[in-house]
Amino acid sequence: MRAALIQCLVSGDKERDVQNAAARIAEAAKNGAQLVMLPEMFCCPYTNRCFAAYAEPVGGSIYTAMQQAAADNGVVLVAGSFPERRGDKIYNTAFAFDETGAQLARHRKMHLFDIDVAGGQSFKESKTFTAGDEVTVFDCSLGRFGICVCFDMRFPELSRCMTLRGAQAILVPAAFNMTTGPAHWELMFRQRAVDNQLFTLGCSPARDEKGEYVAYGNSIVCSPWGTVVARAGAKETILYADLDLGDNESIRAQLPLLSARRTDVYELKEIKG
Amino acid sequence: MRAALIQCLVSGDKERDVQNAAARIAEAAKNGAQLVMLPEMFCCPYTNRCFAAYAEPVGGSIYTAMQQAAADNGVVLVAGSFPERRGDKIYNTAFAFDETGAQLARHRKMHLFDIDVAGGQSFKESKTFTAGDEVTVFDCSLGRFGICVCFDMRFPELSRCMTLRGAQAILVPAAFNMTTGPAHWELMFRQRAVDNQLFTLGCSPARDEKGEYVAYGNSIVCSPWGTVVARAGAKETILYADLDLGDNESIRAQLPLLSARRTDVYELKEIKG
Repeated sequence: MRAALIQCLVSGDKERDVQNAAARIAEAAKNGAQLVMLPEMFCCPYTNRCFAAYAEPVGGSIYTAMQQAAADNGVVLVAGSFPERRGDKIYNTAFAFDETGAQLARHRKMHLFDIDVAGGQSFKESKTFTAGDEVTVFDCSLGRFGICVCFDMRFPELSRCMTLRGAQAILVPAAFNMTTGPAHWELMFRQRAVDNQLFTLGCSPARDEKGEYVAYGNSIVCSPWGTVVARAGAKETILYADLDLGDNESIRAQLPLLSARRTDVYELKEIKG
Repeated sequence: MRAALIQCLVSGDKERDVQNAAARIAEAAKNGAQLVMLPEMFCCPYTNRCFAAYAEPVGGSIYTAMQQAAADNGVVLVAGSFPERRGDKIYNTAFAFDETGAQLARHRKMHLFDIDVAGGQSFKESKTFTAGDEVTVFDCSLGRFGICVCFDMRFPELSRCMTLRGAQAILVPAAFNMTTGPAHWELMFRQRAVDNQLFTLGCSPARDEKGEYVAYGNSIVCSPWGTVVARAGAKETILYADLDLGDNESIRAQLPLLSARRTDVYELKEIKG
């Protein structure tokens, strides 16, 4: 399976960014990609000021352009995330579409990014966004995948829940910054992959040093053994990775972590609405 | 708080290794250490053949020598692990003693190390050992600490359970090998520290290239931000680290991971016997 992570630059011009994303999806498909990912907030600057102004409902221009791009190019598309308006609420939502443009999944970021690092990054997503409350795993022609958005990946419980539901890879539109990126980005994707013995894919916007929120870039793909399969730099690029999802089973047989969990001593449960 | 991790060589001569450990504990105390750790199986070669032959009950010569060493030097001692015999069972057990030699805690390794990596390490601890079934967190003069043994640290659920019980550091006598060590040792200690926003300390035996099981060494101390505070090489050494446990609270305030857990969506519970 060939995956393509589109590390695009967010310009602030929504229409232009959506068109650019569509063009890059076409380019990735031409280069053999079957699974294409966009980053968190791929067509909206990452600031509270913009989230509400750029928000659109399901069926709006961003949503339909992404459906179209998936269908036109015959790829499974994780359409990064964009601000989803529903009634008076706004969510940070990642939609996935199949090769016909049909919606496969919708993940609303469930851990909102509220941090205040001394001398570093401050941000308060919960000013604008409502948090989702669902673990998201979907089946498609390529396999079974989990999706979460950026800060969600910080929580080992969520990755484990997706793994226990049979996810073969965890797909993460994300936008770490210049404080958390160098400190934690690669480390987190590698260790979640090792712990859960599956592939992890993190797709970031390209770094814009002049932006209000400077994304780290460094889109990444990690193997179930925790190696870095592919990693981008800071600039606009498409990161390709060829993955054999069968590697999960081979690693799980050699180093049986999932089956060795002591579920008689601790139990991780999803709480159903 | 000054911690000392004694990365000693396991010679195969039990009495000599116990005496050597006691001498190194005295040296560490003289150098200001208040918390002293020994590695997994610090006085028993890491092979199934030796585990039964070297096993001793509580109150045996290893246990009492370690009590004495803690009391003589006035330190909190995590006496690595050694094979503990109880009735017809053998456990891979880490005991902790306070400055008077009184037992603070007993952790019996609860995830046994059964792996078979293609072209790499194979081992089957469950041939000899019985698994423990308790999460171990204890209070002492220096703070509240969790203990687990080596492979236990592979399981994010266990670290999280210790954290939720208020552990300020996770202390891990361990013996990764030349397959898993280079691949996963530092990564795991760093990410568990980041996820749980506490210190992690891993104490390994020194590397003996001629041994049947070649330990990785590289004893390590990581901060709640995931940085490597101190790290040994492969050889015999005492690794010192000065830790301010107050750093946990500062990191938790800046990057609120523990309080942001979505316990309405997933729940990690300890199952009490």
